[in-house]
Amino acid sequence: MIKAGIIGATGYAGGELVRLLLGHKDAEIIWYGSKSFVGSKYAEIYQNMFQLVEADCLDDNIEELSEQADVIFTATPQGYLSSVLTEDILNKVKVIDLSADYRIKDVSVYEKWYGITHKSPHLVEEAVYGLCEENRGKIKNARLVANPGCYPTCSFLAIAPLVKERLIDEKSIIIDAKSGTTGAGRGAKTDNLFCEVNENIKAYGVASHRHTPEIEQQLGEAAGSPARISFTPHLVPMMRGILVTAYADVRPGVTKEQIRNAYVKAYENEYFVRVLKERICPQTKWVEGSNFADVNAVYDERTGRVVMMGAIDNLVKGAAGQAVQNMNLMFGLNEQEGLQLVPVFP
Amino acid sequence: MIKAGIIGATGYAGGELVRLLLGHKDAEIIWYGSKSFVGSKYAEIYQNMFQLVEADCLDDNIEELSEQADVIFTATPQGYLSSVLTEDILNKVKVIDLSADYRIKDVSVYEKWYGITHKSPHLVEEAVYGLCEENRGKIKNARLVANPGCYPTCSFLAIAPLVKERLIDEKSIIIDAKSGTTGAGRGAKTDNLFCEVNENIKAYGVASHRHTPEIEQQLGEAAGSPARISFTPHLVPMMRGILVTAYADVRPGVTKEQIRNAYVKAYENEYFVRVLKERICPQTKWVEGSNFADVNAVYDERTGRVVMMGAIDNLVKGAAGQAVQNMNLMFGLNEQEGLQLVPVFP
Amino acid sequence: MIKAGIIGATGYAGGELVRLLLGHKDAEIIWYGSKSFVGSKYAEIYQNMFQLVEADCLDDNIEELSEQADVIFTATPQGYLSSVLTEDILNKVKVIDLSADYRIKDVSVYEKWYGITHKSPHLVEEAVYGLCEENRGKIKNARLVANPGCYPTCSFLAIAPLVKERLIDEKSIIIDAKSGTTGAGRGAKTDNLFCEVNENIKAYGVASHRHTPEIEQQLGEAAGSPARISFTPHLVPMMRGILVTAYADVRPGVTKEQIRNAYVKAYENEYFVRVLKERICPQTKWVEGSNFADVNAVYDERTGRVVMMGAIDNLVKGAAGQAVQNMNLMFGLNEQEGLQLVPVFP
Amino acid sequence: MIKAGIIGATGYAGGELVRLLLGHKDAEIIWYGSKSFVGSKYAEIYQNMFQLVEADCLDDNIEELSEQADVIFTATPQGYLSSVLTEDILNKVKVIDLSADYRIKDVSVYEKWYGITHKSPHLVEEAVYGLCEENRGKIKNARLVANPGCYPTCSFLAIAPLVKERLIDEKSIIIDAKSGTTGAGRGAKTDNLFCEVNENIKAYGVASHRHTPEIEQQLGEAAGSPARISFTPHLVPMMRGILVTAYADVRPGVTKEQIRNAYVKAYENEYFVRVLKERICPQTKWVEGSNFADVNAVYDERTGRVVMMGAIDNLVKGAAGQAVQNMNLMFGLNEQEGLQLVPVFP
Repeated sequence: MIKAGIIGATGYAGGELVRLLLGHKDAEIIWYGSKSFVGSKYAEIYQNMFQLVEADCLDDNIEELSEQADVIFTATPQGYLSSVLTEDILNKVKVIDLSADYRIKDVSVYEKWYGITHKSPHLVEEAVYGLCEENRGKIKNARLVANPGCYPTCSFLAIAPLVKERLIDEKSIIIDAKSGTTGAGRGAKTDNLFCEVNENIKAYGVASHRHTPEIEQQLGEAAGSPARISFTPHLVPMMRGILVTAYADVRPGVTKEQIRNAYVKAYENEYFVRVLKERICPQTKWVEGSNFADVNAVYDERTGRVVMMGAIDNLVKGAAGQAVQNMNLMFGLNEQEGLQLVPVFP
Repeated sequence: MIKAGIIGATGYAGGELVRLLLGHKDAEIIWYGSKSFVGSKYAEIYQNMFQLVEADCLDDNIEELSEQADVIFTATPQGYLSSVLTEDILNKVKVIDLSADYRIKDVSVYEKWYGITHKSPHLVEEAVYGLCEENRGKIKNARLVANPGCYPTCSFLAIAPLVKERLIDEKSIIIDAKSGTTGAGRGAKTDNLFCEVNENIKAYGVASHRHTPEIEQQLGEAAGSPARISFTPHLVPMMRGILVTAYADVRPGVTKEQIRNAYVKAYENEYFVRVLKERICPQTKWVEGSNFADVNAVYDERTGRVVMMGAIDNLVKGAAGQAVQNMNLMFGLNEQEGLQLVPVFP
Repeated sequence: MIKAGIIGATGYAGGELVRLLLGHKDAEIIWYGSKSFVGSKYAEIYQNMFQLVEADCLDDNIEELSEQADVIFTATPQGYLSSVLTEDILNKVKVIDLSADYRIKDVSVYEKWYGITHKSPHLVEEAVYGLCEENRGKIKNARLVANPGCYPTCSFLAIAPLVKERLIDEKSIIIDAKSGTTGAGRGAKTDNLFCEVNENIKAYGVASHRHTPEIEQQLGEAAGSPARISFTPHLVPMMRGILVTAYADVRPGVTKEQIRNAYVKAYENEYFVRVLKERICPQTKWVEGSNFADVNAVYDERTGRVVMMGAIDNLVKGAAGQAVQNMNLMFGLNEQEGLQLVPVFP
Repeated sequence: MIKAGIIGATGYAGGELVRLLLGHKDAEIIWYGSKSFVGSKYAEIYQNMFQLVEADCLDDNIEELSEQADVIFTATPQGYLSSVLTEDILNKVKVIDLSADYRIKDVSVYEKWYGITHKSPHLVEEAVYGLCEENRGKIKNARLVANPGCYPTCSFLAIAPLVKERLIDEKSIIIDAKSGTTGAGRGAKTDNLFCEVNENIKAYGVASHRHTPEIEQQLGEAAGSPARISFTPHLVPMMRGILVTAYADVRPGVTKEQIRNAYVKAYENEYFVRVLKERICPQTKWVEGSNFADVNAVYDERTGRVVMMGAIDNLVKGAAGQAVQNMNLMFGLNEQEGLQLVPVFP
């Protein structure tokens, strides 16, 4: 039985981790860490867990936790883990970080976009970017996994097949993304009140969202040459789900069939990525509660552009689900263990 | 492996049955019956099932199905099953009916409230009312189970403890119930359009809703004397969930402690019914996607009335989940098999 | 031109007051008071007002304001107005209080339910309860109007006709009320986040909500004898709207026609209260954005109870709209001025 | 008093026309035309109109109507008006068409995208495209106005200033649009049920939506050279509102200030188009219920692209409001008459 500790268990991603790990036959949660709720019963913070979790919330003492756990999940604010993680901890326990601290390989880029001085840059190189479909091999042997951001996961899975096959111009990529409100966290902010979010849609972080360099890094790596994207996230009046609609110029001579085939080839052996039938557009509702990413593309011959689409549940494939998928890989388990979740509809 | 057939697999309750049975280790679905979609791929009707269900929709030939299946679930309009069910079928296969056809023991009451002539009244007596917490023993041996209605399930679980202990006057019960819109089905009706339901709440079926006699029958049985209730359902702009707020006069001399104890006693051994801590009111969100029923009561000494509250997911404990729970009992399985679903929050 | 000042202009009720007064031909807003946003442009707090309101937010200096204004609206927390209001202010300016400070005639009842010591009990007697349909005459001559609570307004309008005609037992009244989330205010609280409110319904303040004594006071007055009600509010995943479903025992011998006639008689000359046709249940959506209250009742002869229903927009008839209606009366204007708002659908 | 007739008064756009015209001091509705509800009381179809509209629904006899009315609004399916409109009618009455029949100047383009044979192509030339901010002069003298589509209105207002000043490459424009569900109409379709739309977002009509050629026509005209756009609409779980997020390559040497100035210059005298302050992104909620269009742009120097944003209420500025604005112009009234609607928030 894998002993798992969670630091940041009372945020939405942390809560989802608890939900998924409770259904995982080879893991048990031994530490519900929460800065704000130390000493409270976890099930009083998340009443859905009543009679399912009896534990109290503990603090975020990662040193102590590293003595007890086999794996630590950190669903913490940016800058937390990088300020406390040590070689010593990594010698004792595997770490899966749901924050952005170890995702960006170029520390100066991280520091610029996040406005934070990185406190453990020496560990960045070692960290494996935990997009399982892409880095499966490396993840299996990793001590430290940087669990991908929600937008980057969905964007990459929707776009990468065409970039890898060099069917689109990687300088022309525009990503218009739409997210449910869990992405904004459980903090008490006026902007996230029901009455402000409901019956509303808006763009935010235009030309400045922190997931931009992460997406550029991953797409650039897949392309073999730097990518420069426009990325615009939007807040949608729903709880879960990310939809990515991406646009790019198709390279001359590329056919509709090549585009289709690129997706089929990329994902034919991937359980969690579903290439929808032609003309079927992904919908966030079809993946809700599950670890699936639904993708598809439409080639618009009239304009010479392709519209690439992807949908995930931001809390599952975009956060906790992918984290568990990473854990499964790191511990040599069946990659799907605990993640065979049928999407909840409606 | 139990071979399960579903007639009415493309309604919301049918879809939920599919979701639950796909996660059940001892059952497999061999028949996706759907009057409207015969010949279509099931996963094209419910795209969340893409790559999870490969089967096509079949018709509603219960004769044929009874040759192949061990259990048949009927999630069909009122009057369907009672018009086709026969002794012969029941000799071959167990039947769990999610419609109201066999719930009401007094056929004349059924016919009056439903406006339907019952075609197989001789089978009503045999049918077991499938509220597992109440009729566990009978269900284990039943051939035909009448799966309870969503409102009756939630109402009964919230009220029965006080009725059984005779702490309230069963003639004074008023039930004000609120339901998500899945309760209205997947039929294309203007009233159920997003733009009509959203940002709206209304009562409907006032003094005439068909679940009234079912609730009266069950509460009356629990009380040992006839109950006469006022029942008012409301449509709420959410997808899943039923909340029941019920009121009754407390009998003279009854204490707050007696009320609390009645709930504790009734449910201390019930996994699926959670008696919340004092002063905590049930919320539909805390049970969403799960088979739990959360209940609690507040005794208002000022008025001499008790407010009884219950919350369920109408598609799970109020329909498909309870149906699977019944199946588990009927086939001698662990009652919780396939139903250890952690509520999805948020 | 009436010069109006608002203290508490940046809450939801305050914002609605601004919306309504901007459309009022005989009033202008001269003071946008806001404790939290002094010095900010009002239109930066409510961007819907961009280019419509150029003013900055001012403080809550009621003394200073009383020198400049003809009428002051206070949309402030309980206890604020009663701690600053003086005879001197009332000599200079009319005051319409949207808080509860002057609604309850028995100060000890106010102090018990609100847990606040009333600082100006000598002004309670003078204050007129501003339910226009009930107290029109007194309001016309009032200096201080206590604008009714949202739940009491809707409850009273739905129930009063039967109480006044003594067709129901006023001791048997149960009020099950449902409110949109604007009723919870614009404060940043976790409980009111989109992800907590959406896809959820819950009761709150069971047997303890502060609107209880206000409703009892008004219904008792209408009945001519004390009323004792059970009142349970619920939070609904919508922004605006209150629906009241109320139950009472019908007195022996009362007919369906008498019940209908009581409503017709009570409201035949009231523009803002619409008695719906028989069997039509009020829906909050039908009054959204308007000052209408829709009411109706169904007599259930089977149980001997009547189900009384009412719907209002809590921010309009339940707060700002009624406040403007009061202002119109106090200043001798057409009662409907600025309030001929067609409900927005959908 | 202008006598207005509406054909298609029971759709959502028709209903909004009724709401707006009821508040218009110089117009009265004399004909509520509705194919589906002839003979029903209009207020039974839209209960929000109870006691505000007493009329019954009439048929769609435009000949008869043209004898009685000064202006006819047609909120009808594509192809209806073009099949019944005649020179004779236009000699008697002004016509404002909310359908697409007369928007596209190249009839073959219309016929290709709409799949309809145009029955009165001889009237296309005369029809004025009713985007008031663009064609004010022509509208004043028009007999036949083609009221713009919802997406084209919002797209054009957000993008045109940069196209006109030739600051962006009009071949590089990508429009990612998001619409509330009223855009899908009031027809009873499964796809538009609450349980299908809620907690969901999807693209639809990818590379094939009929508003594409309309947007291209208008932007091309503004640019003085053909535009070729990618246009992708999305369905959002809200009732009203369109948000457009558009992307284009900025021409070399163009500065941030030039971009800002283009918007200021374009709209400084336009009441209904609000250029938000720098860095403020439009939100649909800020214009809900009003005829405003909020626009803004962010120049991303890093990528050399500009992100242009616009928000409207699709039923008001995107349909009925703009139609009334057109009527005001055609009849020599104040353009704002009946449209000084403060956005409803929240």
